[in-house]
Amino acid sequence: MMKIYDAPTGPYPARVRIALGEKNLQSCVEFVLVDLWKGEHKKPEFLAKNYSGTLPVLELDDGTFLAECTAITEYLDALDGAPTLAGGTPREKGLIHMMSKRAELELLDAVSVYFHHATPGLGPDVEIYQNAEWGFHQRAKALKGMHYFDGILKSRPFVAGEAFSMADITVIGGLIFAGLVALPVPAECEALQAWYARMQERPSVKNRVTMSEH
Amino acid sequence: MMKIYDAPTGPYPARVRIALGEKNLQSCVEFVLVDLWKGEHKKPEFLAKNYSGTLPVLELDDGTFLAECTAITEYLDALDGAPTLAGGTPREKGLIHMMSKRAELELLDAVSVYFHHATPGLGPDVEIYQNAEWGFHQRAKALKGMHYFDGILKSRPFVAGEAFSMADITVIGGLIFAGLVALPVPAECEALQAWYARMQERPSVKNRVTMSEH
Repeated sequence: MMKIYDAPTGPYPARVRIALGEKNLQSCVEFVLVDLWKGEHKKPEFLAKNYSGTLPVLELDDGTFLAECTAITEYLDALDGAPTLAGGTPREKGLIHMMSKRAELELLDAVSVYFHHATPGLGPDVEIYQNAEWGFHQRAKALKGMHYFDGILKSRPFVAGEAFSMADITVIGGLIFAGLVALPVPAECEALQAWYARMQERPSVKNRVTMSEH
Repeated sequence: MMKIYDAPTGPYPARVRIALGEKNLQSCVEFVLVDLWKGEHKKPEFLAKNYSGTLPVLELDDGTFLAECTAITEYLDALDGAPTLAGGTPREKGLIHMMSKRAELELLDAVSVYFHHATPGLGPDVEIYQNAEWGFHQRAKALKGMHYFDGILKSRPFVAGEAFSMADITVIGGLIFAGLVALPVPAECEALQAWYARMQERPSVKNRVTMSEH
Protein backbone atom coordinates (compact mmCIF):
# COMPACT_ATOMS: atom_id res chain seq x y z
CA MET A 1 0.00 0.00 0.00
CA MET A 2 1.24 3.49 -0.85
CA LYS A 3 2.05 5.88 1.98
CA ILE A 4 1.45 9.62 2.23
CA TYR A 5 3.65 11.54 4.66
CA ASP A 6 1.72 14.65 5.54
CA ALA A 7 -0.12 16.75 8.11
CA PRO A 8 -3.92 16.62 7.86
CA THR A 9 -4.61 20.37 7.97
CA GLY A 10 -1.63 21.57 5.92
CA PRO A 11 -2.36 23.54 2.73
CA TYR A 12 0.13 21.60 0.56
CA PRO A 13 -1.02 18.23 1.96
CA ALA A 14 -4.55 19.40 1.09
CA ARG A 15 -3.59 19.51 -2.60
CA VAL A 16 -2.72 15.82 -2.65
CA ARG A 17 -5.63 14.85 -0.40
CA ILE A 18 -8.04 16.61 -2.78
CA ALA A 19 -6.40 14.86 -5.75
CA LEU A 20 -6.78 11.51 -3.96
CA GLY A 21 -10.47 12.23 -3.36
CA GLU A 22 -11.08 13.35 -6.95
CA LYS A 23 -9.46 10.15 -8.25
CA ASN A 24 -11.21 8.01 -5.60
CA LEU A 25 -7.87 6.66 -4.39
CA GLN A 26 -8.18 7.45 -0.68
CA SER A 27 -8.44 3.75 0.24
CA CYS A 28 -5.17 2.99 -1.62
CA VAL A 29 -2.98 5.01 0.73
CA GLU A 30 -1.94 4.91 4.34
CA PHE A 31 -1.26 8.28 6.00
CA VAL A 32 1.84 8.87 8.11
CA LEU A 33 1.73 11.99 10.29
CA VAL A 34 4.75 14.31 10.18
CA ASP A 35 4.73 16.86 13.00
CA LEU A 36 5.48 20.22 11.38
CA TRP A 37 5.43 22.04 14.72
CA LYS A 38 8.27 19.84 15.94
CA GLY A 39 10.12 20.42 12.67
CA GLU A 40 10.14 16.71 11.82
CA HIS A 41 10.15 17.68 8.12
CA LYS A 42 13.55 19.36 8.54
CA LYS A 43 15.26 16.41 10.26
CA PRO A 44 17.73 14.10 8.46
CA GLU A 45 15.36 11.12 8.49
CA PHE A 46 12.74 13.07 6.57
CA LEU A 47 15.23 14.93 4.35
CA ALA A 48 16.37 11.52 3.07
CA LYS A 49 12.81 11.12 1.73
CA ASN A 50 12.55 14.67 0.37
CA TYR A 51 15.66 16.83 0.03
CA SER A 52 13.56 20.01 0.10
CA GLY A 53 12.06 19.19 3.49
CA THR A 54 8.45 19.81 2.54
CA LEU A 55 5.19 17.94 2.85
CA PRO A 56 3.53 15.95 1.39
CA VAL A 57 5.58 13.00 0.15
CA LEU A 58 4.14 9.91 -1.52
CA GLU A 59 5.97 6.60 -1.06
CA LEU A 60 5.23 4.09 -3.80
CA ASP A 61 5.04 0.34 -3.22
CA ASP A 62 8.56 -0.05 -4.66
CA GLY A 63 9.97 2.39 -2.11
CA THR A 64 10.25 5.36 -4.50
CA PHE A 65 9.58 8.70 -2.82
CA LEU A 66 7.68 11.35 -4.78
CA ALA A 67 7.67 14.88 -3.44
CA GLU A 68 6.13 18.08 -4.86
CA CYS A 69 2.36 18.33 -5.20
CA THR A 70 2.38 18.73 -8.97
CA ALA A 71 4.52 15.62 -9.39
CA ILE A 72 2.36 13.57 -7.01
CA THR A 73 -0.79 14.78 -8.73
CA GLU A 74 0.63 13.88 -12.17
CA TYR A 75 1.38 10.39 -10.84
CA LEU A 76 -2.02 9.83 -9.21
CA ASP A 77 -3.89 11.29 -12.17
CA ALA A 78 -2.13 9.01 -14.66
CA LEU A 79 -2.61 5.76 -12.70
CA ASP A 80 -5.96 4.85 -14.26
CA GLY A 81 -4.99 5.95 -17.76
CA ALA A 82 -7.77 8.55 -17.73
CA PRO A 83 -6.33 11.89 -16.59
CA THR A 84 -8.91 14.37 -15.31
CA LEU A 85 -6.76 16.69 -13.19
CA ALA A 86 -3.68 17.43 -15.33
CA GLY A 87 -5.30 17.59 -18.76
CA GLY A 88 -5.81 15.28 -21.71
CA THR A 89 -4.96 17.30 -24.84
CA PRO A 90 -1.70 19.22 -25.25
CA ARG A 91 -3.58 22.52 -24.89
CA GLU A 92 -5.31 21.37 -21.68
CA LYS A 93 -2.01 20.15 -20.23
CA GLY A 94 -0.38 23.46 -21.06
CA LEU A 95 -3.16 25.62 -19.63
CA ILE A 96 -3.56 23.55 -16.47
CA HIS A 97 0.18 23.48 -15.74
CA MET A 98 0.44 27.22 -16.41
CA MET A 99 -2.46 28.15 -14.16
CA SER A 100 -1.37 25.77 -11.41
CA LYS A 101 2.17 27.16 -11.44
CA ARG A 102 0.79 30.69 -11.49
CA ALA A 103 -1.38 29.83 -8.48
CA GLU A 104 1.78 28.70 -6.67
CA LEU A 105 3.83 31.75 -7.63
CA GLU A 106 1.20 34.41 -7.14
CA LEU A 107 -0.81 32.99 -4.26
CA LEU A 108 0.01 29.74 -2.42
CA ASP A 109 3.81 30.02 -2.25
CA ALA A 110 3.52 33.76 -1.54
CA VAL A 111 1.24 33.08 1.46
CA SER A 112 3.64 30.38 2.60
CA VAL A 113 6.60 32.75 2.52
CA TYR A 114 4.57 35.32 4.45
CA PHE A 115 3.74 32.71 7.10
CA HIS A 116 7.28 31.40 7.47
CA HIS A 117 9.03 34.78 7.31
CA ALA A 118 6.76 37.53 8.62
CA THR A 119 4.79 35.70 11.31
CA PRO A 120 6.05 33.35 14.06
CA GLY A 121 5.43 30.56 11.55
CA LEU A 122 6.15 27.15 13.05
CA GLY A 123 7.98 28.71 15.99
CA PRO A 124 11.58 29.68 16.71
CA ASP A 125 12.95 26.13 16.75
CA VAL A 126 11.76 25.50 13.18
CA GLU A 127 12.01 28.98 11.62
CA ILE A 128 15.75 29.30 12.01
CA TYR A 129 16.02 31.97 9.30
CA GLN A 130 13.40 34.64 8.73
CA ASN A 131 13.33 37.64 6.42
CA ALA A 132 10.29 39.63 7.48
CA GLU A 133 10.59 42.24 4.74
CA TRP A 134 10.47 39.53 2.11
CA GLY A 135 7.53 37.95 3.92
CA PHE A 136 5.48 41.16 3.82
CA HIS A 137 6.42 41.66 0.17
CA GLN A 138 4.99 38.22 -0.58
CA ARG A 139 1.86 38.98 1.45
CA ALA A 140 1.18 41.93 -0.86
CA LYS A 141 1.82 39.70 -3.86
CA ALA A 142 -0.70 37.14 -2.60
CA LEU A 143 -3.40 39.80 -2.18
CA LYS A 144 -2.73 40.99 -5.73
CA GLY A 145 -2.88 37.36 -6.83
CA MET A 146 -6.34 37.02 -5.30
CA HIS A 147 -7.52 39.90 -7.48
CA TYR A 148 -5.94 38.24 -10.52
CA PHE A 149 -7.75 34.94 -9.91
CA ASP A 150 -10.96 36.85 -9.21
CA GLY A 151 -10.64 38.35 -12.69
CA ILE A 152 -10.04 34.91 -14.21
CA LEU A 153 -13.08 33.45 -12.45
CA LYS A 154 -15.32 36.24 -13.71
CA SER A 155 -15.02 34.75 -17.18
CA ARG A 156 -14.68 31.00 -16.53
CA PRO A 157 -16.26 28.46 -14.16
CA PHE A 158 -12.87 26.96 -13.24
CA VAL A 159 -9.32 28.29 -12.97
CA ALA A 160 -8.01 26.69 -16.18
CA GLY A 161 -11.26 26.71 -18.18
CA GLU A 162 -14.46 24.72 -18.36
CA ALA A 163 -13.51 21.83 -16.08
CA PHE A 164 -12.19 21.27 -12.56
CA SER A 165 -8.42 20.60 -12.62
CA MET A 166 -5.16 20.65 -10.70
CA ALA A 167 -5.15 24.43 -11.15
CA ASP A 168 -8.32 24.74 -9.04
CA ILE A 169 -6.70 22.53 -6.41
CA THR A 170 -3.68 24.83 -6.21
CA VAL A 171 -5.82 27.95 -5.78
CA ILE A 172 -7.83 26.09 -3.11
CA GLY A 173 -4.52 25.34 -1.36
CA GLY A 174 -3.70 29.04 -1.53
CA LEU A 175 -7.00 30.06 0.04
CA ILE A 176 -6.72 27.36 2.73
CA PHE A 177 -3.32 28.79 3.67
CA ALA A 178 -4.63 32.35 3.48
CA GLY A 179 -7.38 31.37 5.92
CA LEU A 180 -4.82 29.96 8.35
CA VAL A 181 -2.83 33.21 8.38
CA ALA A 182 -5.89 35.48 8.57
CA LEU A 183 -5.46 36.88 5.07
CA PRO A 184 -9.06 36.67 3.88
CA VAL A 185 -10.19 37.06 0.30
CA PRO A 186 -11.06 40.75 -0.14
CA ALA A 187 -14.80 41.45 -0.21
CA GLU A 188 -14.60 42.90 -3.71
CA CYS A 189 -13.28 39.58 -5.10
CA GLU A 190 -16.82 38.25 -5.50
CA ALA A 191 -16.12 35.78 -8.28
CA LEU A 192 -13.25 34.23 -6.32
CA GLN A 193 -15.44 34.01 -3.21
CA ALA A 194 -18.32 32.42 -5.12
CA TRP A 195 -15.98 29.90 -6.77
CA TYR A 196 -14.40 29.05 -3.38
CA ALA A 197 -17.84 28.48 -1.84
CA ARG A 198 -18.62 26.09 -4.72
CA MET A 199 -15.28 24.32 -4.29
CA GLN A 200 -15.89 23.75 -0.59
CA GLU A 201 -19.00 21.75 -1.50
CA ARG A 202 -16.97 19.21 -3.46
CA PRO A 203 -16.62 15.98 -1.44
CA SER A 204 -12.85 15.87 -2.14
CA VAL A 205 -12.43 19.29 -0.57
CA LYS A 206 -14.96 18.83 2.23
CA ASN A 207 -13.58 15.49 3.41
CA ARG A 208 -9.88 16.13 2.98
CA VAL A 209 -8.91 16.51 6.65
CA THR A 210 -10.85 13.50 7.92
CA MET A 211 -9.69 11.32 4.98
CA SER A 212 -6.93 9.77 7.11
CA GLU A 213 -9.19 8.79 10.01
CA HIS A 214 -10.18 5.31 8.91
CA MET B 1 2.67 29.60 -36.93
CA MET B 2 3.28 29.56 -33.18
CA LYS B 3 5.24 32.41 -31.61
CA ILE B 4 7.78 32.32 -28.81
CA TYR B 5 8.32 35.56 -26.90
CA ASP B 6 11.76 35.31 -25.39
CA ALA B 7 15.37 36.52 -25.18
CA PRO B 8 17.91 34.25 -26.91
CA THR B 9 20.44 34.01 -24.08
CA GLY B 10 18.04 33.87 -21.14
CA PRO B 11 18.17 30.80 -18.89
CA TYR B 12 14.40 30.29 -18.78
CA PRO B 13 14.05 30.82 -22.55
CA ALA B 14 16.80 28.20 -22.90
CA ARG B 15 14.52 25.61 -21.30
CA VAL B 16 11.90 26.01 -24.01
CA ARG B 17 14.47 26.34 -26.80
CA ILE B 18 16.08 23.05 -25.70
CA ALA B 19 12.63 21.41 -25.58
CA LEU B 20 11.91 22.69 -29.11
CA GLY B 21 15.22 21.24 -30.33
CA GLU B 22 14.65 17.90 -28.61
CA LYS B 23 11.19 17.64 -30.20
CA ASN B 24 12.48 18.92 -33.56
CA LEU B 25 9.91 21.72 -33.55
CA GLN B 26 12.21 24.70 -34.11
CA SER B 27 10.85 25.33 -37.60
CA CYS B 28 7.27 25.48 -36.25
CA VAL B 29 7.82 28.66 -34.25
CA GLU B 30 8.63 32.27 -34.89
CA PHE B 31 10.71 34.04 -32.23
CA VAL B 32 9.74 37.50 -30.97
CA LEU B 33 12.46 39.30 -29.01
CA VAL B 34 11.49 40.84 -25.67
CA ASP B 35 14.14 43.22 -24.33
CA LEU B 36 14.68 42.28 -20.69
CA TRP B 37 17.18 45.10 -20.13
CA LYS B 38 14.51 47.63 -21.07
CA GLY B 39 12.02 45.85 -18.81
CA GLU B 40 9.65 45.11 -21.68
CA HIS B 41 8.50 42.01 -19.80
CA LYS B 42 7.16 44.17 -16.96
CA LYS B 43 5.12 46.53 -19.19
CA PRO B 44 1.32 46.32 -19.53
CA GLU B 45 1.43 45.06 -23.12
CA PHE B 46 3.47 42.04 -22.09
CA LEU B 47 1.69 41.52 -18.74
CA ALA B 48 -1.51 41.02 -20.75
CA LYS B 49 0.21 37.99 -22.30
CA ASN B 50 1.69 36.73 -19.02
CA TYR B 51 0.46 38.10 -15.68
CA SER B 52 3.69 37.05 -13.97
CA GLY B 53 5.86 39.13 -16.32
CA THR B 54 8.34 36.40 -17.14
CA LEU B 55 9.82 34.89 -20.29
CA PRO B 56 9.30 32.77 -22.29
CA VAL B 57 5.70 32.80 -23.49
CA LEU B 58 4.33 30.59 -26.27
CA GLU B 59 1.47 31.94 -28.38
CA LEU B 60 -0.58 29.21 -30.03
CA ASP B 61 -2.20 29.57 -33.44
CA ASP B 62 -5.56 30.22 -31.79
CA GLY B 63 -4.12 33.16 -29.83
CA THR B 64 -3.82 31.31 -26.51
CA PHE B 65 -0.79 32.38 -24.48
CA LEU B 66 1.09 29.73 -22.51
CA ALA B 67 3.61 30.89 -19.91
CA GLU B 68 5.77 28.88 -17.49
CA CYS B 69 8.47 26.58 -18.86
CA THR B 70 6.96 23.41 -17.43
CA ALA B 71 3.58 24.17 -18.99
CA ILE B 72 5.10 25.02 -22.38
CA THR B 73 7.23 21.88 -22.27
CA GLU B 74 4.19 19.74 -21.40
CA TYR B 75 2.38 21.25 -24.40
CA LEU B 76 5.24 20.80 -26.87
CA ASP B 77 6.04 17.30 -25.61
CA ALA B 78 2.45 16.13 -26.04
CA LEU B 79 1.94 17.51 -29.57
CA ASP B 80 3.16 14.38 -31.39
CA GLY B 81 1.48 11.97 -28.98
CA ALA B 82 4.87 10.51 -28.05
CA PRO B 83 6.12 12.26 -24.91
CA THR B 84 9.87 11.99 -24.34
CA LEU B 85 10.52 14.94 -22.04
CA ALA B 86 7.75 14.80 -19.41
CA GLY B 87 7.45 11.03 -19.00
CA GLY B 88 5.29 8.22 -20.32
CA THR B 89 4.34 6.07 -17.34
CA PRO B 90 2.84 7.47 -14.12
CA ARG B 91 6.11 6.80 -12.29
CA GLU B 92 8.17 8.57 -14.97
CA LYS B 93 5.82 11.56 -14.93
CA GLY B 94 6.04 11.74 -11.16
CA LEU B 95 9.82 11.48 -10.99
CA ILE B 96 10.42 13.93 -13.85
CA HIS B 97 8.04 16.54 -12.44
CA MET B 98 9.54 16.14 -8.97
CA MET B 99 13.13 16.50 -10.12
CA SER B 100 12.31 19.40 -12.44
CA LYS B 101 10.50 21.25 -9.68
CA ARG B 102 13.36 20.50 -7.30
CA ALA B 103 15.79 21.89 -9.87
CA GLU B 104 13.74 25.10 -9.93
CA LEU B 105 13.47 25.41 -6.15
CA GLU B 106 17.00 24.44 -5.23
CA LEU B 107 18.97 25.79 -8.17
CA LEU B 108 17.47 27.75 -11.08
CA ASP B 109 14.98 29.92 -9.19
CA ALA B 110 17.50 30.39 -6.38
CA VAL B 111 20.12 31.71 -8.83
CA SER B 112 17.47 33.94 -10.38
CA VAL B 113 16.58 35.47 -7.02
CA TYR B 114 20.27 36.03 -6.31
CA PHE B 115 20.67 37.80 -9.67
CA HIS B 116 17.60 40.01 -9.29
CA HIS B 117 18.06 40.83 -5.60
CA ALA B 118 21.75 40.76 -4.68
CA THR B 119 23.39 41.96 -7.90
CA PRO B 120 22.47 44.94 -10.12
CA GLY B 121 20.31 42.45 -12.02
CA LEU B 122 18.63 44.08 -15.01
CA GLY B 123 19.47 47.56 -13.75
CA PRO B 124 17.72 50.11 -11.50
CA ASP B 125 14.88 50.85 -13.90
CA VAL B 126 13.79 47.20 -13.93
CA GLU B 127 14.77 46.04 -10.43
CA ILE B 128 12.44 48.35 -8.57
CA TYR B 129 12.45 46.23 -5.42
CA GLN B 130 15.51 44.36 -4.18
CA ASN B 131 16.12 42.39 -1.01
CA ALA B 132 19.84 41.68 -0.98
CA GLU B 133 19.80 39.55 2.16
CA TRP B 134 17.24 37.24 0.55
CA GLY B 135 19.31 37.19 -2.62
CA PHE B 136 22.45 36.03 -0.80
CA HIS B 137 20.41 33.46 1.11
CA GLN B 138 19.27 32.03 -2.21
CA ARG B 139 22.82 32.08 -3.57
CA ALA B 140 23.86 29.78 -0.72
CA LYS B 141 20.86 27.57 -1.43
CA ALA B 142 21.87 27.28 -5.09
CA LEU B 143 25.40 26.20 -4.18
CA LYS B 144 23.96 23.58 -1.84
CA GLY B 145 21.65 22.54 -4.66
CA MET B 146 24.63 21.96 -6.93
CA HIS B 147 26.03 19.51 -4.40
CA TYR B 148 22.65 17.77 -4.21
CA PHE B 149 22.46 17.31 -7.98
CA ASP B 150 26.09 16.19 -8.02
CA GLY B 151 25.11 13.42 -5.60
CA ILE B 152 22.16 12.45 -7.80
CA LEU B 153 24.34 12.31 -10.92
CA LYS B 154 26.87 10.06 -9.19
CA SER B 155 24.30 7.28 -9.32
CA ARG B 156 22.34 7.98 -12.52
CA PRO B 157 23.17 9.13 -16.05
CA PHE B 158 20.38 11.71 -16.08
CA VAL B 159 18.66 13.84 -13.44
CA ALA B 160 15.42 11.81 -13.29
CA GLY B 161 16.86 8.39 -14.14
CA GLU B 162 18.01 6.51 -17.21
CA ALA B 163 16.81 8.93 -19.89
CA PHE B 164 17.14 12.61 -20.77
CA SER B 165 14.07 14.56 -19.63
CA MET B 166 12.60 17.92 -18.69
CA ALA B 167 14.42 17.58 -15.36
CA ASP B 168 17.79 17.67 -17.13
CA ILE B 169 16.64 20.74 -19.04
CA THR B 170 15.78 22.54 -15.79
CA VAL B 171 19.18 21.79 -14.24
CA ILE B 172 20.83 22.96 -17.49
CA GLY B 173 18.85 26.20 -17.15
CA GLY B 174 20.16 26.53 -13.61
CA LEU B 175 23.77 26.09 -14.67
CA ILE B 176 23.34 28.49 -17.60
CA PHE B 177 22.08 31.12 -15.14
CA ALA B 178 24.85 30.27 -12.66
CA GLY B 179 27.38 30.86 -15.44
CA LEU B 180 25.87 34.28 -16.21
CA VAL B 181 26.20 35.39 -12.57
CA ALA B 182 29.69 33.93 -12.07
CA LEU B 183 28.56 31.21 -9.68
CA PRO B 184 30.51 28.28 -11.13
CA VAL B 185 29.92 24.65 -10.27
CA PRO B 186 32.32 23.84 -7.39
CA ALA B 187 35.34 21.78 -8.47
CA GLU B 188 34.41 18.94 -6.13
CA CYS B 189 31.09 18.45 -7.94
CA GLU B 190 32.70 16.21 -10.54
CA ALA B 191 29.63 14.21 -11.50
CA LEU B 192 27.63 17.39 -12.10
CA GLN B 193 30.47 18.85 -14.17
CA ALA B 194 30.83 15.69 -16.26
CA TRP B 195 27.07 15.53 -16.86
CA TYR B 196 27.00 19.23 -17.86
CA ALA B 197 29.85 18.70 -20.32
CA ARG B 198 27.85 15.84 -21.88
CA MET B 199 24.70 17.97 -21.98
CA GLN B 200 26.50 20.77 -23.81
CA GLU B 201 27.26 18.33 -26.64
CA ARG B 202 23.55 17.74 -27.30
CA PRO B 203 22.48 19.61 -30.45
CA SER B 204 19.41 21.03 -28.67
CA VAL B 205 21.64 22.61 -26.03
CA LYS B 206 24.47 23.63 -28.37
CA ASN B 207 22.22 25.34 -30.90
CA ARG B 208 19.71 26.96 -28.59
CA VAL B 209 20.86 30.57 -28.90
CA THR B 210 21.21 30.60 -32.69
CA MET B 211 17.91 28.73 -33.15
CA SER B 212 16.07 31.97 -33.85
CA GLU B 213 18.48 33.21 -36.53
CA HIS B 214 16.88 31.70 -39.59
